[in-house]
Formats: sequence, C-alpha cells, structure tokens
Amino acid sequence: MKLKNGAEYIESLKKLHPVIYYKGKKIEDVTRHPATSPHVRAAAMTYALASDKNLEDLATATSHITGRKISRFTHVHQNVEDLIKKVKLLRVLGQKTGTCFQRCVGLDGINATYSVLHEMDQKHDTDYLERFKKWLTTIQDENRMVVGAMTDPKGDRSKAPVDQPDPDQYVHIVERRNDGIVIRGAKLHMTGAVNSHEILVMPTVAMDERSRDYAVVCAIPVDAPGVTMIFGRQASDYRRDMKESIDVGKPSFGAVGGEAVIVFEDVFVPKERVFMDGQTDFTGDLVYRFAAHHRANYGACKTGLMDVLIGAVSYLTQIQGTAKASHVRDKVTEMIHLSETLFSSSIACSAEGWATPSGAYMVDTMLANVCKQNVTRLHFEVARLALDLAGGFIATLPSQYDLESEDVGQLVKKYFSGVEGIPTEERVKLARMIEAMTGGTALVESMHGAGSPQAQRIMIFREGELGKKIKLAKALLGIPQKNIRKEVN
Amino acid sequence: MKLKNGAEYIESLKKLHPVIYYKGKKIEDVTRHPATSPHVRAAAMTYALASDKNLEDLATATSHITGRKISRFTHVHQNVEDLIKKVKLLRVLGQKTGTCFQRCVGLDGINATYSVLHEMDQKHDTDYLERFKKWLTTIQDENRMVVGAMTDPKGDRSKAPVDQPDPDQYVHIVERRNDGIVIRGAKLHMTGAVNSHEILVMPTVAMDERSRDYAVVCAIPVDAPGVTMIFGRQASDYRRDMKESIDVGKPSFGAVGGEAVIVFEDVFVPKERVFMDGQTDFTGDLVYRFAAHHRANYGACKTGLMDVLIGAVSYLTQIQGTAKASHVRDKVTEMIHLSETLFSSSIACSAEGWATPSGAYMVDTMLANVCKQNVTRLHFEVARLALDLAGGFIATLPSQYDLESEDVGQLVKKYFSGVEGIPTEERVKLARMIEAMTGGTALVESMHGAGSPQAQRIMIFREGELGKKIKLAKALLGIPQKNIRKEVN
Amino acid sequence: MKLKNGAEYIESLKKLHPVIYYKGKKIEDVTRHPATSPHVRAAAMTYALASDKNLEDLATATSHITGRKISRFTHVHQNVEDLIKKVKLLRVLGQKTGTCFQRCVGLDGINATYSVLHEMDQKHDTDYLERFKKWLTTIQDENRMVVGAMTDPKGDRSKAPVDQPDPDQYVHIVERRNDGIVIRGAKLHMTGAVNSHEILVMPTVAMDERSRDYAVVCAIPVDAPGVTMIFGRQASDYRRDMKESIDVGKPSFGAVGGEAVIVFEDVFVPKERVFMDGQTDFTGDLVYRFAAHHRANYGACKTGLMDVLIGAVSYLTQIQGTAKASHVRDKVTEMIHLSETLFSSSIACSAEGWATPSGAYMVDTMLANVCKQNVTRLHFEVARLALDLAGGFIATLPSQYDLESEDVGQLVKKYFSGVEGIPTEERVKLARMIEAMTGGTALVESMHGAGSPQAQRIMIFREGELGKKIKLAKALLGIPQKNIRKEVN
Amino acid sequence: MKLKNGAEYIESLKKLHPVIYYKGKKIEDVTRHPATSPHVRAAAMTYALASDKNLEDLATATSHITGRKISRFTHVHQNVEDLIKKVKLLRVLGQKTGTCFQRCVGLDGINATYSVLHEMDQKHDTDYLERFKKWLTTIQDENRMVVGAMTDPKGDRSKAPVDQPDPDQYVHIVERRNDGIVIRGAKLHMTGAVNSHEILVMPTVAMDERSRDYAVVCAIPVDAPGVTMIFGRQASDYRRDMKESIDVGKPSFGAVGGEAVIVFEDVFVPKERVFMDGQTDFTGDLVYRFAAHHRANYGACKTGLMDVLIGAVSYLTQIQGTAKASHVRDKVTEMIHLSETLFSSSIACSAEGWATPSGAYMVDTMLANVCKQNVTRLHFEVARLALDLAGGFIATLPSQYDLESEDVGQLVKKYFSGVEGIPTEERVKLARMIEAMTGGTALVESMHGAGSPQAQRIMIFREGELGKKIKLAKALLGIPQKNIRKEVN
Repeated sequence: MKLKNGAEYIESLKKLHPVIYYKGKKIEDVTRHPATSPHVRAAAMTYALASDKNLEDLATATSHITGRKISRFTHVHQNVEDLIKKVKLLRVLGQKTGTCFQRCVGLDGINATYSVLHEMDQKHDTDYLERFKKWLTTIQDENRMVVGAMTDPKGDRSKAPVDQPDPDQYVHIVERRNDGIVIRGAKLHMTGAVNSHEILVMPTVAMDERSRDYAVVCAIPVDAPGVTMIFGRQASDYRRDMKESIDVGKPSFGAVGGEAVIVFEDVFVPKERVFMDGQTDFTGDLVYRFAAHHRANYGACKTGLMDVLIGAVSYLTQIQGTAKASHVRDKVTEMIHLSETLFSSSIACSAEGWATPSGAYMVDTMLANVCKQNVTRLHFEVARLALDLAGGFIATLPSQYDLESEDVGQLVKKYFSGVEGIPTEERVKLARMIEAMTGGTALVESMHGAGSPQAQRIMIFREGELGKKIKLAKALLGIPQKNIRKEVN
Repeated sequence: MKLKNGAEYIESLKKLHPVIYYKGKKIEDVTRHPATSPHVRAAAMTYALASDKNLEDLATATSHITGRKISRFTHVHQNVEDLIKKVKLLRVLGQKTGTCFQRCVGLDGINATYSVLHEMDQKHDTDYLERFKKWLTTIQDENRMVVGAMTDPKGDRSKAPVDQPDPDQYVHIVERRNDGIVIRGAKLHMTGAVNSHEILVMPTVAMDERSRDYAVVCAIPVDAPGVTMIFGRQASDYRRDMKESIDVGKPSFGAVGGEAVIVFEDVFVPKERVFMDGQTDFTGDLVYRFAAHHRANYGACKTGLMDVLIGAVSYLTQIQGTAKASHVRDKVTEMIHLSETLFSSSIACSAEGWATPSGAYMVDTMLANVCKQNVTRLHFEVARLALDLAGGFIATLPSQYDLESEDVGQLVKKYFSGVEGIPTEERVKLARMIEAMTGGTALVESMHGAGSPQAQRIMIFREGELGKKIKLAKALLGIPQKNIRKEVN
Repeated sequence: MKLKNGAEYIESLKKLHPVIYYKGKKIEDVTRHPATSPHVRAAAMTYALASDKNLEDLATATSHITGRKISRFTHVHQNVEDLIKKVKLLRVLGQKTGTCFQRCVGLDGINATYSVLHEMDQKHDTDYLERFKKWLTTIQDENRMVVGAMTDPKGDRSKAPVDQPDPDQYVHIVERRNDGIVIRGAKLHMTGAVNSHEILVMPTVAMDERSRDYAVVCAIPVDAPGVTMIFGRQASDYRRDMKESIDVGKPSFGAVGGEAVIVFEDVFVPKERVFMDGQTDFTGDLVYRFAAHHRANYGACKTGLMDVLIGAVSYLTQIQGTAKASHVRDKVTEMIHLSETLFSSSIACSAEGWATPSGAYMVDTMLANVCKQNVTRLHFEVARLALDLAGGFIATLPSQYDLESEDVGQLVKKYFSGVEGIPTEERVKLARMIEAMTGGTALVESMHGAGSPQAQRIMIFREGELGKKIKLAKALLGIPQKNIRKEVN
Repeated sequence: MKLKNGAEYIESLKKLHPVIYYKGKKIEDVTRHPATSPHVRAAAMTYALASDKNLEDLATATSHITGRKISRFTHVHQNVEDLIKKVKLLRVLGQKTGTCFQRCVGLDGINATYSVLHEMDQKHDTDYLERFKKWLTTIQDENRMVVGAMTDPKGDRSKAPVDQPDPDQYVHIVERRNDGIVIRGAKLHMTGAVNSHEILVMPTVAMDERSRDYAVVCAIPVDAPGVTMIFGRQASDYRRDMKESIDVGKPSFGAVGGEAVIVFEDVFVPKERVFMDGQTDFTGDLVYRFAAHHRANYGACKTGLMDVLIGAVSYLTQIQGTAKASHVRDKVTEMIHLSETLFSSSIACSAEGWATPSGAYMVDTMLANVCKQNVTRLHFEVARLALDLAGGFIATLPSQYDLESEDVGQLVKKYFSGVEGIPTEERVKLARMIEAMTGGTALVESMHGAGSPQAQRIMIFREGELGKKIKLAKALLGIPQKNIRKEVN
C-alpha cells in the first residue's frame, strides 16, 4: 500500500486538482476547506486503521490478485470471513468517526463489477475482467480511494433513460473512438466524491437493448477534463463553514459523508479504463449486486453511529439526573435493541455469503435488502428516542457565542447546568452532537443511501420465493401442487 | 381590540425595549432582525385573521368580562363551541404559516390561571381572580401578546426545587415587599417570548409546603428591568440569518416558534400583577390544566403544518413523475391518516370539554394528553414518510448560490429538473421547505413542546380509572368486587 | 317501544321461525342454543339499558317522525348531540358486555338509507323515502332489531358483479312483479342476523348502469320463505357449545357478535318493503354513508371492550404480584393510550357531524375512516400488550375439568396460585377472559368489520383534498397556483 | 442412534407410562390421543429428517464424546458451523410442520448445562460434568427426546423463591439421601413434555446462598414415580379432540408444541442423574445460557412457520382474485421482510458464536436476545397482515359440518367459491390453517416462550456496554474519560 496512513492520504489529495463548487464558489483545497475537511478526516480514518496493530486484521486483507497486503476497502471478498470482517470494520469506523467514512461505496462498486465482468466475458467472449484487474491492481497497490458512481438524475421518473426529453438524465456514451469513449451526464449524491482519487461509473438501472449507449462502466480520475463537482448542502452547514467548535456537533467529523453532484461534460475515457460498453444484458446484475453489497453495509456502519449516539444520550441523562428513571432505561434499551437488530442483518447476510463464478463472494441478497429496509425505519426511531431522552433544549439551546459571551455566558452556564461537578460545556457539547446526529441530513442519508425503501421492497418480493412458500402450505394441507398460479411471481 | 392587524402588532413591538441576545449580540429590533422577524410574521398572522371576514368567527370571540369583541387568543373559553373553534383556528393558522404562531401558550396560561384562581380564592378567601381579571381586561382590550412561562431549567432533575444545590433552578420569590415581590430564576424554551408584550410566569411542577417561595404566578412586561432573553439556535439558522431566499425553506416564516431563555435577575413585580404567592396546594392543578390545554392544541396546529407538508410532497412527486405509483399514493394516504388521527384528538378533547367552577371551560384531560402523546410519535412518522417520498436530494442538493451561479447554475437546473414544463426552481423550493419542516428542530418541538412524552404518560395512567376498569372485568366474570387492591391506583 | 327490556326481546325471538344451520344441524331456538344465546344476551343488553334510569338518556331518543320515545338503535340522528350520545352508548355497552352487541349495523343501515333515499327521490322524482318511513315507524314503535345486510360473497374479486361467472355472487333481483320483487344471492358476516327481527338488504359496492338488477334495497323478515342462515364458527366455540362455565371466557357473553351467512333463494319482497330498485347512481353514496357511520362506531364499542380488557389485565397483574413493576405500568398506560386514541376519533367524527339534505346527520367521513383504520391496527397492539402482561399461561393453562378434578384439582390450584388471599379460580377466570378477548376471532372482527383496512385507505386518500393541500404549500413558497396537475386527484 | 425414524420414536413412546391428565381424564397413549398425537407427529419429524438424505447434514452431527453419528438435537455445539446448521434445521422443520417440533428445548438445556458444569467443576472441584457426559452419551446413542424443564410457577412474583408463602412454588430438594435426592415442585409450560423420554430439570432464576435447596439440576424419566403431567388447553382444541379433518387447521400437526404442567411430588433422583446440588453461584449462568440458546432458535423456527403462512395467504389471495393488487403485494412483501428480519438474528447470533471453556459453543447473547425480542413483536404483525389479506371470513366461516351437509353444503360451496377452477374446499382449508396459525395460542407462544419480553430487555440493557458507548461519545467530543458514572451500569 502506497498510502499507509491518514496523513499520506491527505497529502495525496493535495496533488489532485478536481473542479469543485460549493455555495457558488470553487473549493481549491478539500483538505482545508471547512465544508470538505471533516469528510476528508473521516476517510482518513480508513487509512489510519490499516496501520493500527489492534485493527489491521479487520482493516487490511491479502489481495487475491497480487498476494500483497492491501486495504480491505480495495479487496475483492474471497470468502465469508472477508464479508464478516468487512462489516465489523465498518462498525468500528462508525464508532470512531460517528459518521460516514465513504469508502464502502467504491469497495462495493469494485466487488459488483468484478463478479459481473467475469460472467459477461464468459457470455460475450470479451476480456473486460482482465482490463479491470489491471486497474484494480493499481488501486490496491496505491490504496486509492474510489467513489462508486451509480445514481443518475433520472429526470422524469415515469420514463426510461432513452425516453427522457433530455437524453443526458442518465450517463451515456456520446462518442466511441478507437482509443476510448466520450461520456456525458451526471451522477447525484456522490458520497466522498470530492476527496476520492477515482470515479467508478456504473449504470443505475437494468436496461434493455434500446439503451446500449447507457450501459457503460468505466473509471475516471476525479480531476479528468470535463468533470465538475458541486458539493451539496447539509443541515446547519454554516456552523461548520464558520468553524464553530462546539455547535458544529462533532469537532472533527461531519454529519454525513459529504455528497456531491458529479457532472460529466463530454469526458474522454481511454479504452483500458472502459469495463462495459453496451452489454445491457448485464446492467441488471451489476445494479443488484452493487445494491446488495451496499445495503449490507448500512446495518454495520449505522450501528457504529448508534453506539456513539446511545453513549452520548446515556451520558447526557447522567448529567441531567434522569439516568436511573425506569422509562429512561427502557428507552436506552430500545435504542440498543434496534441498533443490534440492524447489525444482525449485516452479520447474517455476510454469514450467508456465496461464491459467484468469478470466485468473488456476494452477500445474501434477501438479507442484505432486509438490512437496509430496516435501516430506513429504525434509524428514525432511534433518533426519536434519542431526542426524547435528550430533552427540548436540543431545539432551543443558545449558541456557543452566548455560552462564551461576557454578557450572558454566566447565565447560560448557570441555567443549563445539570448535576453538580460536571461543567455545562459537556452538556452543551453532547446536545450539539445529538442534534447533528438526529437532524434531517443524517436521517435522509439512512433513508435513501444505497437505494430508497421501495427499491428494497421490490427485491424482497422478488427474492421471496412465493412459489416455494405456496408449495409448503399446500403440502401441509394435502392440496395438490399443480395449481401454482402465475399471478404471484 | 387596540391592535387590529399584523401591521399594528409589528408597530407595537417597535415601542418595546426588551433585552435580547442572540449569538452573543443584542437584537435591537425583533421585527427586522432576520433571526426573529420570521416569528414576528407568524405571530402577526394571528392578528391578521381577526380582521379577515371569512375567518373572524374563528379568530375572534366576545369577552365574557366586557362583552367586547376580542381576539380568541385572549379569550377565556366559555363553552364547548369555544374550544372547538379554537382548535380549528389553530389548524388554519398552521396551514397559513406552516409553522408555530406562538400565541396559544399565553392563551393556555390565561385559561389555566383563570379557573384555578377561582378555586384558590374560594378555599383561601383571597381575591386574586379579581386582580387577574383587571390585568386580563387590558390584555383583551389592547390585544396584547402574552407568553405563558412555565418550564424551569430544573438543574439536577432527580431533586425537588428546594433541594437543588442552586436555588435559582426554579423561579422563586427572593423578596416580599409591601408593594410587590422580587423574583429570580429563569424559564427555558419560551416560544414567542422575544416578540410578546407580556410574560405570564407560572410554576412548572406540583409543589408541597416546603416550596412556598416557588409557588408564584405573576405578569411581567417583556422589557421590565432585570429581564434578559437569550434567543436559541435552530437547525440551519444561518440560512435565515444570511437572508437566503430559497434555502431558508419558507421565505416568510420560520421552522418553529422561535424559542428563548428568559432570565429573571431580581425582577420586581407590583402587587396588582401578582396572582399567586405561596399557595402550593394549587400549583398542581395549575400545571395540569395548563398542560392539558396546551397538549390539546398540538393535534390541531401540527395538522395544519402537515397539511402543508403533504401538499408539498404531493406536488414534488408530480414534478418527479412518481405521483401515480401505488406506493407513493399509499404513503401519502398514510400521512393523511396520521395527521387526521392527531386532529381527531384535538376535536375530541374539545367536544368533551367541561365547565370548571369558574365557568371557564377545560378540555378533557385524558384525551388532551392522548393527543400530545400521539404528536410525539406520529410527527416523526409523517416526516419519515415525507422524506421517503421526497428523495435523497433533500440531503445532497447544492445551495441556491450554485443554482444562481453563472458557472454551474445551468448544470444544477439541468440535472435537478423533473417533468417537462415545471422550472427546477419550484422543485428546489419544495425540497428546501420539506427539509426545513422535517429537520431536527421542528421535530424536537413536537416531541417536547407542551411537555415531554413521559409527562403525558403519567397523566394517562393517572386518569385511566383502573379501579373502575377492574370493576367492569369483575362484573363480567361474577367475581366479588371487594378486592380492588391499592397497587394499581 | 313495544319491547321494553331484555326479557321482552328474548320472548319476541321465540315467536320467529328463521331457518338457521350450525355445525350441520338446525338451531330451533336461538335464545337457548349455546352457540347463539350469548349473542342474544348481548343484544338484550341494548334493550335493558333503555329502561335503566341512569342510562336512558343515552339509550333512548325521541323519534323525529312520531315524536315518541324510541330506542336510540332505531333513531335517525338529528344533530351532533345524537351522534355523540350514540358513541357514548356504544362504549357503555362494550363495557357491560365485553363484546359486540350487534345493533349498530341496523342503525347505520337505517341512517344511510334514510338520507340517501331523500336525495334519490329528489333526483328521480320517486317516493321511496315515504315507504321507508312507514317501515321505520314500525321498527321504532315495536323496537325491532334490524340486521344491516351489505357484504356480498364477491366470488372472484377481480371482477365486477355483472362479470362474475356466477351471477349470484352479489344479491340481485331475479324477477320483478306487480306486487314486489324476487331476489337471489347471499350476504356474509351478518352480525346479529340470527337474533334479529328483520334484514335490511343493501348493495355492497358503487355500481354503474350495467348493474341495475344489483341496485336493490329492501327489508325482509328473518323468517321469510327462502331465507336460510348458516351460523359461523368462532375460535374455541366448542367450549361455549359444551357449556363450560369458566373456560368459555365470559360466562354470559360471546367473543364477537355472532356472524352468519344469509342466503336468499328467490325470496319475494312486497313492494312496500322495497326501497331501491335499479337506481345505481345512488349505490355509491349508500355504501359510503353506511360505511362511515359504521366505522365511526368501532372507536367507541371497541374502547368499551378494551376498558374491560385493561381492567382484567390490571387485576391479573395484582394477583401475580407484578402490578407495581415499572414496565407493567408502562404497558398498561400504553393500552389506555391506544384505546383512548380510538375513542377520540369516534367522538371527533361525531362532533364534526353534518346535516344531509334529509335532515339526518352524518359523521365526518374522513375522521370516521381514520377511526376504523386505527382500530385495525391498535386492537392488535392492545391485545399484544395484554398477552405480554398476562403471561404464558394463557396458552398452557389446564382446563377447568382439571381445575375441578378430584385427582389433580389441588395441583392446579396450588401451582396456579398468585399472591396470598385470592383464590386461584379468579386468576383462571381472568386468564380465560383475556384468552377469549385477544384470540383470533375477536381481532379479525376488528380488522374486517365495517370494511377491510384498504377500504378505509381509499376513502382517506379520496377525502384528503390533495389539491387544496398543494395550494397551501405553493402559497407559502410563492409558487403560482396554476399548475395543479391531475395525477394526484 | 437407536431411534432412527419417526416410526421408531412413536413406538418407543408406547413403552413409557407417564401419568398425564387432560380435561380431567388420564391420557393412556399419547401417540393415539387426539390432543397429543399431533405433537407426537411434529416431534417425529425431527427423527424423520435424520434419515433424509437431503437433510441429514443438517439433522445429524458427530458426537464430540463418542465420535458417533447422532441427532443434532442431542449434540453439544462444537463450532459456529454447528450453530448455523442448527438454526437452518429449525427453519426447515418449521416449514415441514408449520408448528413447534419441541426438541430444541432439550437441546438447549443440554448445551447450557454442559458448558456451565465445566466451569462449576473447575471452581468447586467437583465432577458433575463427567456424570452428565455419561447420561448424555445414552441420550445421544439412543436418540432420546429430552424436555428442558426450567419455568417454575413462581407464585407471588414480587417474592424470591425462599420468601414464598408456599415453598414449593420453585422446584427444590426436600431430602438428601446417600444415593440421591428427593425433589418437589412443578414446572409450567413444558413443551413436548408428554411425548419426551426424559426431563432435564434446571433452576429458573439466578439465586443467592439462601436458596441452596433450589439450585438443582437433574434428569428424570417422564414416568418416574411422583411425576404427574397436566396437559394444557389450546385455542379451538375441541376441533382437534373431535378429530375434525378440515377445521382443525393443519390435518397432521398442532398449532403449538403442546404444553404441560409437570408436577414433582417428592420424586427421587439417583445420584448419577443429579448434575447440580446447591451451587447457587452457577444458577445465573445456567439460566442465561439456556435462555440465549433458546432465544436464538425462535428467529429460525418461527420463520419456518411464517414461510408456510405467507404461502397460505398468497395462494388464498390468488383464489380470491386479489393477488395482483398493489396493496396485497406490499403486505406480502412486508410479511417476508419481517420474517427474514427474524431469521437474520438467528443466523447472526450463531455466526458470532464463541467457545466456552468447555469447548461447547455459545451463541452471541446480545443478538440472541434481540432475536427473541423481535419475535415477540413481529409475529403479531405478521399475523395481523395475514388476517388483513385473508379477509373477514376467517372469523365467520361456517363449519366443515355445514360444508359437508346435505342441506346446506351446496350453499357453502357456492358462496365461498373464488376464481373459477379451484374447489371451495381449498379455500376453506387455507382459511382454517391461517386461523390456527394466527390465533391466540400460537401468538402467546411466540410472546412468552424462551422468556417473556421484559426478560430479554433486561439482558439487552445488561449486555449493552453503556460504559464503552459513553467512552466513544466522549472521545469524539474531546471530553475527558474520567467521569464514567455508575448510574448507567
């Protein structure tokens, strides 16, 4: 691994020159700009753990291509143990950052692409996987951060890509040259994009023959000509931009991963970086595998965040003198129960992993979708309980300027104190972290990241094997099996 | 009514000189400062409706003291019809502002105090109600806005007021003079405080004899000497302070009511404005009645907000081309169902209102508590559904600076467009309003305003008449009635 | 009122000779047969209360036709007060029987038919309402029990009535004579049918012109030639049929209302008893009004049942020594909260009642549907909490034969005892009542009675005024109102 | 394995002579009595699968004591794979029986006892594990069915065992002899007891020194002198006792496992069958380990049941013509989602299994408790959805006597038909199975089996590592770690 720790990662970013806009202006250095540096620090933690003696077993792996030690975030899972170590790593990172550390989206893109290319090459007699392996070897050896770029803008969602009034609402090939392709379009909600090294472009829906130009997978450096990023807003983002130390919530890290729009304005991609070009028959598998891997992760990283949130709330109730109340304990219990329910599914879909023909391991699709579906519900409930226990001052607390004011600082300290012996500042810091972790942006990310709730339901129904279940019922009742009707499947 | 419309109300505020801090600095004019003016405008709507021909039947009433036409927000409810008109008025105001308009807290304080003073005078042979009526007549005639001030800081919540290490954690009388009293302490979460004319101080818990100095009710002008307010932070408050027109969510109104800490540093209150002094035996009733009235309201005003939110989400799904999907319709149906469930309880506890000995009408305590308890749950669920339908861009949308940027504005417009024919700006505005209405501060207010969830549960258990219910079960089983045991009651 | 109390009602049933089958055999006397007599007793309670001095204000009304005192169960609601008294009466009856007392279905049929016939006569220049009033006067004067018969078998539910392979899957007119009509078909789930005096047949769906023969409303004596009833099974029905005194649950009353299939095999109905014949344009309104009235009731009668259940569970926890545990109190609180949430909607939709052109009062349709929708969810949750608190012995308790056995009776008494001083029999009786009230049949009735959950959702969406809500959102955002699109409405 | 298949198991039961009462009478042959034979058949399925070529990998294991092939239900788990195979076996058995097959309770008792005795022997320098291994070897070799007997009656639950007015409310040693002990007391809710070969008695709570006589583990043949069993009632049990073929629900199997009270009236247990005598310091671990193993199972076997239920409901909606409706598909999706959520936790707590000092593998305690906690909620929700989709006739359907009646059979067949081509009997059978699987007894078993909901919450709080979580929060906020207060732990 070329990049061995957080500092080296941060240094590497300084050498890139991506075009990034935020609030109408260019960001010149993502490692220093207050809007992006918290996210850089969170991603840096993925580099730091790889050299942490206690955690390197989780944080690193052995490349099945080169045999060299690599970051687990660049690894193609080779067995169930790999899958389980990965989700445990995600929980630890969630605990250490209290937020999204962004690298799993590239990891999932790599894994989905790897296994699908193998099958695609078999069917179409192509050699895309070899190209991909070459690119991947560099990623592994240099420990480059990759943003998996899937979600297109979609325009009018009642229409397919080729039926959109604006053909660019899905990324597509606008020109094919001997040495490569030219693509146009955009990807939305790109977590970690501004502080990645590379973009792995993938299609976002299963496509039919009409959409050949839209069936494209390729890798692009973040600062390739024609790539423009626009960094999105978050709740209370000014507090961060104003460099407030307390009211920002977490002093070092952000509330979410830091999302950006990536626009491709006729970006040239050389042949060796093109991994799919027109094979619409494999777009579905690519999307479903990426989605399954990504959904599997949410039950682990979010549980890590909830560990932090539960800790914060528990300590706050101690300060407020309510920790022993039976309803407080019961709500804390419920928060733990819900978070561990999520973790269960992450572990389970990993333990039930299976080998694709390529040798790469997939998680169990049903359980991975179940995992994410629960995240879209239970994170809200955990947040609701946290806010219940924390109290109304989460919404009414004066700012840190008032806390530090010569005029009214003493009043704030006096009237927001709790049990004797703990400074009001600790109570305020906890409140601000809870505010940040339960506010809008954080919850929307849990809702829509890795696919909106309805996307999981479609998969759960599809994987539900209703025909088999009907057979079980009939068998128990002695009803002949012949009449399995088509309606349900 | 002296103040007949919004403009006169706003003008009246300019004549006051309250001491208000925000982000470490003084606010000189609440009607112009970006942090407070949205809340002023929402309160102004309560004045505006009183002169709206279509709504004045809801918005005004006839004083039972003077027979004059007054704002319903200064009225002592005289019958069930009054209670029902009130909650309908609240829903309309919620629909017109999409936020808290703050005046019900004073209204509820007035009503609770009125009925309790009557009973207190009867028992203690005092004449506090007459004093109160004089003060109230002025409030009614001048249409003054009153902030009902109940919630104390509470310090270490495992300790009673008199057992706190710091005696000021609950407002108390520090001196009794011939011409009045001097009070010290603070009230937290004071909705509408900075743009009210008067503060009606009330105790926040039922007290015993030891707490005589804490059993105090009195009225204080907001700019009385010794009164200091500190205005609290809200999620994304800088967007408002920076006068962003779109990203702020709603161009004219805020996300919540605008809460402040009110600190009383040895404030003198003249005798004619003191309405309780030491009658600890009536603190419980005062708190419970205020709470019941206030909890009754939440099912109405929040339903008004949800009407707006449901409309915003519905229109957004039209723009995005998803409005006809069955799961979208089902989620919209659920949002309506949940919001009307809340409204049911507001109507029901009003329809079941009852006359106190004073003639003032109370809502049904059980149903009012049930109402608020449901708000603490269902508002989160409605918000969750709204965010589900709105989509992930609520968390990742670039700022309005980017939307309006010469460099990237066209990209934002292109890639955040929806169905043909509707400008991207409309989609963005809807997204920002949904973001504001579902974000942290708005939900925390629904959770803790009018009392935290556990406070309602205590009342629901207490009002649950378990003894009577046990009798019903025994009667059906032919079990003798003698053994009603004490444990449950 | 001819029938003045329960005894007279029971006596009146003995004079009828309906054809009723149960478990393959005829029931000769519904007042004595163990399968039907519990339901007779529950219905008799509606007669008994009319002569109860404390309750007659709820249980009786003054006929707007004759001015005579009548049972409220035969009354056409004349104002909001009538609607509210009705739901309070239902709750009291639920408390006194712990089950369904069946008479509201006829009451709702009468009220829906009355108001619709008025409008139908206006449009079609007919005089059906006069016919109906004559019939109704007899019903009122004699205090006859009427079963409102709406639900048809429906066969293949993906097909309309006229498209069914079997035309009899919906009740229809097979012959029109000068002196009347002949009908064929069946009605399912007919609560109280076997112990009613009359059947009021109504259509079950909104129909179009093709279905003229299916648009029929008429009244038929339960023992008219061609009418056959088949009484349905219930969970644990043998315990009742075997006349077990304890294990049956409630010694006098059943778990539900007692449902039957009513089959009409070419039943002749004389002209004066036919109230609709082919007016398909009014079938929709009839169904919706009946449904709204009926749905409004569920929040009241079921709350009465829950009062009993909560009492039973509370007393049981006292016997088991767990009543003081904080989680027990919290679950009891939740049961109360949920049941009062249901009651809220019953009260609210009544308080928001409105006069139809006929003068008959309707409940608020939205809130009535919201009420029933909540019943379909919250009754299950209340049952779940009851079973949680009651304990596992609800599923494993030996029979009363063992309790009373010479061989093992002492063992049962010893090992199912609770706190000292309360006989084990009391604990067992409570357990059996809880078992009956939370078992399958009781919950299915709450789910599907007055329309399945999806039926309410369709109405909630339809009544949700999305167009108006979108206008509210646009107004707050300053978006022009022109583009209300048709998709949502 | 001596007993190689279901027939041999059934034969073996005929040779035993346990004293069993049911409805006041003795059951002479459990394999033929209608109340017990369905449960015998379900247990027989555990024997049958061991000789099923496709399933023997799941259904059998290799004894770590003898190296011989044994039933997995007598195996001490030696690794994670064992744990995972076990839960998969449970799901398959649930699918094949649609009910409880009873053998896991003995399996869990064996595993908990095994690992605890190892540690107990280490500390107390005893040799109980050797005794236990000898007994276990016979169990394994003969493939005997063991009922794990833990739950005592508990009497007044606010009192400890030794403080009960009746000392027999917990099983205890009443006499110690040279050759063994004599015990007295009872165990409730004993699943599979009447058709087991042996009883493994264990204490039901953690005990202190005062309770030495209550700290007893021992094995007793079901027909040992002094053992009396009383078989409990179930919902609709007469249908089974009357040998109804359709209305019973499932023709071959019961709704639950078949529970009995086991009373020990001074039962002598020879020394070699006593595995704990007075070691109160290990009662806690024994209870917690047994409970964790048992709770882990519920997410697997119940998922098997739900597979059947989902299949039954899906087929029923096909027959009723509603299978394609979007709300039907959505509810089926939800049922699948909830059931797979349960399965996730069973898999996860197995995948996270760990080796005790004895070498026996334990499931992860936290996740096992989370698993069961979810069962207590989600099974009700799945049942509610099933009843929603099935329709109201689950509660009102005439009996099979009517279906088969010469008089009304044709009417039942006509009016309960669905889409063309499927006999009404199939619809009726499905309805009866759904009725049985969602009725009271089945749900109570899911609620209280393996411990009531509150028991899991206590464990979840205890295992929640709040101290560690607080440290995480503090670390992120830069708050010194010193002040971890004791309240929370």
